[in-house]
Formats: sequence, structure tokens, C-alpha cells
Amino acid sequence: MTEPGRPDTPTGMNAKPEPIDLAGRGMDHSPLVRSWTVQVTPPSLRDNTALAERLVRALERAGGPAGMTAPLFLTAGLADLYTRADYRVWAAVRVDRNPGRIVMVEPAPGPGRAYGLAVDLGSTTLVFALVDLETPAVIDRMTLANPQVQYGEDILSRVHFADRPGGLDTLIQALRRAVNQGAAEICSAHGLDPRGLVAAALAGNTTMTHFILGLSPRTIIREPYVPVINRPEGLTAAQIGLDLSPEAPVLIMPNKGAYFGGDLMAGLVVSGMNRAEKPCFLVDVGTNAEVVLGQADWLLGAAGAAGPALEGGVARMGMAASPGAVDRVRIDRPSKTLTYRTIDGQPPRGLCGSGLIDLLAELFLSGLIDFRGKLTLPPGHPLRGETDEGPAFIVVPADETEEGRPIAVSEIELDILIRSKAAMYTILTTVVKSVGLTFDQIDRFYVAGTFGRFIDPRMAVAVGMLPDLPLDRYVPLGNSSLKGAILALVSGQARAEVLEVWRKLTYLEMNVNQELMNRFSAARFMPHTNRSLFPSVGTIIN
Amino acid sequence: MTEPGRPDTPTGMNAKPEPIDLAGRGMDHSPLVRSWTVQVTPPSLRDNTALAERLVRALERAGGPAGMTAPLFLTAGLADLYTRADYRVWAAVRVDRNPGRIVMVEPAPGPGRAYGLAVDLGSTTLVFALVDLETPAVIDRMTLANPQVQYGEDILSRVHFADRPGGLDTLIQALRRAVNQGAAEICSAHGLDPRGLVAAALAGNTTMTHFILGLSPRTIIREPYVPVINRPEGLTAAQIGLDLSPEAPVLIMPNKGAYFGGDLMAGLVVSGMNRAEKPCFLVDVGTNAEVVLGQADWLLGAAGAAGPALEGGVARMGMAASPGAVDRVRIDRPSKTLTYRTIDGQPPRGLCGSGLIDLLAELFLSGLIDFRGKLTLPPGHPLRGETDEGPAFIVVPADETEEGRPIAVSEIELDILIRSKAAMYTILTTVVKSVGLTFDQIDRFYVAGTFGRFIDPRMAVAVGMLPDLPLDRYVPLGNSSLKGAILALVSGQARAEVLEVWRKLTYLEMNVNQELMNRFSAARFMPHTNRSLFPSVGTIIN
Repeated sequence: MTEPGRPDTPTGMNAKPEPIDLAGRGMDHSPLVRSWTVQVTPPSLRDNTALAERLVRALERAGGPAGMTAPLFLTAGLADLYTRADYRVWAAVRVDRNPGRIVMVEPAPGPGRAYGLAVDLGSTTLVFALVDLETPAVIDRMTLANPQVQYGEDILSRVHFADRPGGLDTLIQALRRAVNQGAAEICSAHGLDPRGLVAAALAGNTTMTHFILGLSPRTIIREPYVPVINRPEGLTAAQIGLDLSPEAPVLIMPNKGAYFGGDLMAGLVVSGMNRAEKPCFLVDVGTNAEVVLGQADWLLGAAGAAGPALEGGVARMGMAASPGAVDRVRIDRPSKTLTYRTIDGQPPRGLCGSGLIDLLAELFLSGLIDFRGKLTLPPGHPLRGETDEGPAFIVVPADETEEGRPIAVSEIELDILIRSKAAMYTILTTVVKSVGLTFDQIDRFYVAGTFGRFIDPRMAVAVGMLPDLPLDRYVPLGNSSLKGAILALVSGQARAEVLEVWRKLTYLEMNVNQELMNRFSAARFMPHTNRSLFPSVGTIIN
Repeated sequence: MTEPGRPDTPTGMNAKPEPIDLAGRGMDHSPLVRSWTVQVTPPSLRDNTALAERLVRALERAGGPAGMTAPLFLTAGLADLYTRADYRVWAAVRVDRNPGRIVMVEPAPGPGRAYGLAVDLGSTTLVFALVDLETPAVIDRMTLANPQVQYGEDILSRVHFADRPGGLDTLIQALRRAVNQGAAEICSAHGLDPRGLVAAALAGNTTMTHFILGLSPRTIIREPYVPVINRPEGLTAAQIGLDLSPEAPVLIMPNKGAYFGGDLMAGLVVSGMNRAEKPCFLVDVGTNAEVVLGQADWLLGAAGAAGPALEGGVARMGMAASPGAVDRVRIDRPSKTLTYRTIDGQPPRGLCGSGLIDLLAELFLSGLIDFRGKLTLPPGHPLRGETDEGPAFIVVPADETEEGRPIAVSEIELDILIRSKAAMYTILTTVVKSVGLTFDQIDRFYVAGTFGRFIDPRMAVAVGMLPDLPLDRYVPLGNSSLKGAILALVSGQARAEVLEVWRKLTYLEMNVNQELMNRFSAARFMPHTNRSLFPSVGTIIN
């Protein structure tokens, strides 16, 4: 799978299907659902087999699994359907289980193929892929803003909103409506009816998964932080209010507790580290820092509150990685002039995670902040502003912004950023030490999530967030949540590996002891108190 | 299982549970659903397993199947349930499949046991059994009149009623309401809530099965006579509108075409002829005569329109085997005085199938009809009446009946009866000849259905309906439809055998050729043209 841009709208008929290279991943092509067009033998006095069993027989003859079953409502419509279709029908069958199950029947040609929907249930953005399960190929992609944002910018505030009367239902319905809207739009662009989609796979963090399932996330954020369910099974579209083919099987990536969501399981499988011979790291920074260290035999996970500053909730100017977000910052060393880039080239509105990391790194590397994160610009300098919170660095002057106000980041916000990067480095150090390894023994360092797509590993190393390893060991995974969902739709191997990593992953309890606090304190400098850990990061004379 | 009477109402608290003797049938005790009372471990910081998986673990520890799944709506209620129950819960689990599935969860003690409902979906009468799946035992039984009778006395007229606008829905709802009423009444008599029933098994003819499933039976009665479905699978109570525990699995005995209903499959398993070493016959007479010949390796079935006269639809005085039906008739040879018995001792209202067979036999044996079925009583004889249809035999004089009118059977009705018995004998002869056997090679002759419970084999032999074999070869099965449903609830062996007989049964096409017509003509005399076939039937000089 190549990594296309982040289209807000589907490309439509001109979209070129991207074949899914399963062989390259060592995975088989065994879709969740397959379809066949068959001629059902009309009943006769000589053969009084029932209408339902005639369809099963015709599908078996065409290569379908033996002894499949059918939902009652499909059975009830068969007499009429056969008459309308003159016994020539298209049927989609869930084939990953024994016995198989008929999902949908239509007069031929019907949708013609088994199409499915893969969704990354991001807390900020929902990303959709329309998948042809049989080729297999990704037909198109699109994104929608998660409408839950209006009820709470971050996950935590949404969980609190869910506690209000009617709040949970509001959040559930908003999410389901948005998923239905995405399905309808991406299908419409290809002349398809979303009610002809016969499979879906959804990946998201544990709370988002609970919302789509209609489950309360209240236990997730309260001690002892347990989800209602880890591994949902046997779901259909109708059961969770999705307007796809009602009996379409819906896979939901399993979670392993509050911090290790299905998006992470997807990421692990997409990275392939569950088959690696040497230890690898997977890092996912969102509201929390989630890291997994492991290889074929074992997977050790740890998580901690680390990243709020990177998700747009904490820094006043922080925002999601959406159009108008500054996602790249460079400062020319001699002239101290700053250049930036925004997503989709829109007028700047704030900074997303990668923009904030870039800013922190470039400020440090150009000497505009010291190793403690304090501004070195003298009062009155044009790049220095004053806010209620004290001195701030002006990233974008007022006349260049959409709202006519400067985009500035205060020293206090820089400090929060530094705490975030320190937390991440502390977690990584704790995990790697816990198994007696050192960073240079890590073969690959997979970086997942939005964070991974846009952040330059050099910058993350420069601020001391990620260890100072050769850059070629860093592998961005892109939207591995969506990729994992796509793979689950088309490969039994992928589905098996999701369960395998889910079972294998063990949790490293991060005890907040003196040693950890010492490590954290040491990491609260740029790039680190112990400069020998970051030899590649240039020394700036402050 | 003993054969109790036919109670219209449950016996209630005083009912003595009848243990189900599975060992005696060579069957295992492996109920469809089992239940456990477990203490769920409350979540802690050390163990962040989700609420749903905690229940699964607790059930696994208690001996439940590994890796069971749960319906979403049960999962959604777990947080509250645990709080209310202080983590002590009762759960019922469907255990006949892998993975198992949680059906119901309640604070302990809940219903305390896995109770299920077995129903014989008779076209005239619905018979219910409340079953304790775990002991296993039948707790109580009861009967209800099938309320569909008001829309059509016999099955055929109901299928026609179903063609009217709204007709099908009326029939479906009437049946489902009656089943729900039966479940509620039998549970109420034992202080149980029907919504605590966690399993059901239903057996009935093909049309009744279609009604309970909500399927149109129109194709069943029209050439080429095919059902909509042969073997319904994966049903829950909620899916078919039964007010039991919503996720309770519902087994519906499979049919093999229009004539071979699930009641017959139940009968075959209850008879045990599917394991017999020597050939046996199973005979079920209802609207149609259905016969199966076979033994362990093979089962050959045939059916034909034969029995309407016996079901109450044809003879004017015919009626269902319900209170007030004359079910036994004897005529004293010397005095020609007639005595009769009614069901439940109620004032006589008509004759049920066994009463009609008795009457025919006794009239013949006492010389009141000749071998052609013509009355030998001279005009003016007190037992001879005259009707629009011609001469009739007065079974019950007017002053003894409920309605104050005599119960009489005309010569024409006697002729219809004789045609019915001739059809049955013809079918039996054709089937036995088709495999090169003779009647005396038949080891057992199982007689199923209402017909089998009340009809005296001696009488059926006397009229020439059943072959003249030693009477100990005739084995009445009683309500084998209900018995089979009960067995399916408690034994995996029984469930497997139902499928086995369903697969094994082959259909003998009855070609209406000259040979068959000759056979039928020869059987249209009392007991048969060829008296040597019925040596035990006394010769009466007419």
C-alpha cells in the first residue's frame, strides 16, 4: 500500500485503484467476505429442496464454503427475489468462519464485487478507505472531521461529556452518523450504494472503539482504568447502527486496556515487528505516549500521559493536523528568519504536533532558546511577544494569519512541550532498560499515527524525544490504523496476526519511583542533561 | 420420558419433575445451554482486563467453554450489573458450539438453572414442556389450542388465508402470541419469568415451522411444493418474536420438503429406528400420511394425501382430539349396542381420528357395514339416520350430545374414511415393495402423532389401514414431536441424530401409475380385497 495524501473528499471515478500488495508482506489473500454470481436451479417436482438451500447449493457449486447459513430476513425475501432475478443472483458470503454465512443477496449483477469499508476512528479525524476485497485493492480514500470534537476537543473531555444526561448517546450518534456519512460519500463517488458494502473493519483507540460500539467509556478513565470490552466479536453493521449491508460483518480491532487501543494492534501488524528477528520499537504519540518493544517472540508495552501538547489540546496555538495547521518550521541559523508550511497551503491557524516539534528543535538548534527552553531573545525583539503567560515566541506574525492575530508559543507552553518529550524519552528508556537492552540494539523504530507521518525524526531526535539513532532506523508507518483495518478486510493472516499481537502484548507497569523521576528530570533539558546520549545533535553556544 | 396425560394447564408447583432418561436411550447429557454462578474478580490496577473478558474468565474458571463471546447488549450492561450484584452473577452460556456464547447474565442467583421450552407446534394444539436442561428433567407440561384455527381449520385453508392482505402476518402473530402465552403460563405456574428461559426447541410440520419463522408458506402448497427453508440455523428468541431471554438459542427441527416436517425428524430420533439393525416403519397420519421405512444405514420416506378424514376437516362430525371428542367406540356384537368414550369425559361434540377408526372397525366387525362400507341396517332402524348425503350411522343420539343434535356419520363419510385407510395401506405397500421387503420382515412399526397415541393398532389393522402384524410390533410413540424437541434441548447426541436423519432421509416419488391405482382399488374394501393379507381379522358374514 502506498501512502497517498490526506484527501478530504474521495477522488471519485478518476481514482486509480491501488492494489494491496499482500505477497510483499508475506500475507495471504483471504478476504472476510467473497461474492459470487450464480444461477440458482429453479425448483421442480423432481427436486423439492427449499429456496434457501438451493441458493446454498448454487454457491457451493460456484466454489463457496460448504454448508453456509443465511439470516432469516434474507431467507424471507428469496421467493420474490428469485422471481425478479429469474434465478440469477449475486450473493456475498462471509467466508472466514465455518460455517460460512450469507451476508447479502441481490438480483445479478448486484454490486458485482465484495466491497468493504476500512475506517480509522481518529479522535480528531475519521479516515475512510473503500476496499475491493476480491482484487484486492483500495478504490479510494477520504477524511472527515470527527464531529465529536464539538462536544469535547480531546478524548478526556468527551468522556466527561458522556457523563451528562444524554451525553453518551449524543457522542455515539454523532460518531455513527459521521461514519455513515463517510461511507455514503465515498460510495457515491464511485456509483455505489453504501448498503451494498458487505464488510467493515474499524480501528481506533479504546475510547473511540467504545463509542462506536455504543458502550460507555466511563470506566476507561477512572481508576482502575478498565474498558468494558477488550475484544468485540461477531458484530454486524445493523447491530452498531451502520448503514451498510445490515448483516455485513464488522471487525473492531481489539484493545488491551485503556492505553493500548485497536489502532496500536493495527500498527503492530502493519509494522511487521511481530515477525521481526531483532528487537524493534513502535512509538505512537497522541494524547498518550504508547510504546511497544518486541520482536517475534514477545511484545512489551508501556504507556503514559505524554503527548497532550502534541495533540492541540494544551498549547494555546496547538491544533489538529488539519488544513491551516503549521506542520513544518525551519529557522535559518545565520539570519534567524523563520519559514513555515501549512497543511493544504491554507492560511495558518495554529501548529499541529509536527509543527510544535519542529519549532522546539529549530528554536534550540538556532540558539533562540537555551537548553532549559527559555527564550534568549531580548525584550523588544520582533520575534518576541509578551502574553498573559509571559514571554512568547512569535511563529507567524499577525498579518499572515487567518484570524489577524499572531501565532505565538509562550515559554510556559514550550515547557509543557519539553515535559512531553521528556516523558516520551523516559518511557522509552524505562522500557528498553527493563529488558536489559540499549537503544543501539534496536533494529527498527516504527513511528505510528499522525505524529509519525508528519514529524521529521531528525527533529524529534534534536529535541531529545526519540533516541539518537541512525535516521534510517526510523520508519514512519503513516496511518497504520487505517492500513491495519484494510489488511484485516482482505487477509486472514492479518486477522490472525491482530489476535496474535493482542494476545502476546504484555504490559509493563510504570512505577513512579525515584529512578523514574530522576530519568524524567534528566530528560527535561534540550536535548538531555547527558549530551553524550545525543552526539549527533549540534552543540549551540548559548 | 413417561407419557403423561394432555393437561390443558400446567400442573404447577405440585408437578413432580420427570427425569429425562438419556442413558436409557444411549444418549449423552450435553444441554444446549448451561449456567453457572460465579464470582467475577473486580478490576484492579494490577489487572486491567475489561469487564466483559472478566466474566468470560470467571466462567472459564467455573468450567465453561474457553473463549466464549457475548452479545453487545449484555456487554453494555455489565458495569451496572457488577455494581448491583457485587460481582456475583449467574450466567447462561450456549455450549454446543465453539466458541460458546453468553446468552444471559443476571445478579446471582438469577433463575438459578438453565431452563428451556420445548414446543410441539401442532396445527390444532400447541403442547409445551418446561425443561430443566441441567438435571435434566421435564418440570411441567401444558397444552393450548392453536389460535390459528380461527383463520382456517386445516393447514391448507390457513395457507390460503395467508394469501389475503395482512393474512400471513395475522397467522404469524397469532402463533407467536400463543407460544408466548404458553411460555408465560407454564413459567408462572413455577414462579419463573419466561424471559429467564434460555433455550427453546420447536418441532412442527413444514408449514407450522414457516409460520413461526415468519416465512410465507405459499410455495409449500403450490407445485412444485418447495419450502422456503429446510434447515433454519442460528436463531434467537428475539429474532422470531418470542418473549424468552432475547438471545436464547431457538432450535427448529429441520424439514425435508413439504410433507416431511420437523415433527417427523423428531419422531424418527425418538423412535430410535435410525439406529435399528432391522427395518422399521414410522407412520404419522395427519393431514397427510407420512411413512418412513428404514434402519441404521438408510431411511426411505413417502407421503401422500391420506388423512384429512382423520383430522376433523372432512367428516362433518370429525374434530380435533380435544375435550368432548369421541376417541373410542365399541359395539357389542350380539346386542349391537354402542358405547363410547370422550376426551376428558366432556359431553360429546364429534369424533376425533381414533374415534373414527374405532367406529369404522367396530361397524365392520359387528356386521353393521359390509366390506364396501355400506350400512346393512334397514331403513327405520334406530341407529340409522337419514341426512342430506343419504343414510348415516348414529353414533351418539341427540339427547346425549352437547348441542342436542345426533352425532352421525354418513355412508359418504365412511367412504372417505375408507379411501384414507386405503391410501395409507397403498403407500405402505408401495414403500415396502420398493426395497424388496415384505411386511413380516418389519421389526417395529412406530406410530407417531396424535394418531399414534389414541388409536388402537388392533382397530387400524381391522379396517385394513395398517398391515396385519403381531400387535407387539406396533409401538405408539405418543407426542414424539414434543419428545424430540425435549431431547434436542438436553442432548448433543439427539441434536446430531436429528441432522443425521434429516440428511439420510431420501424421498420415494410415488408415481401414480396403473400398479398403484390397482393397489389402491384393492385396498378400498374392508379390510382388503385379498382377505389372506389380514388373517387375524375375523370374518363377518354379511
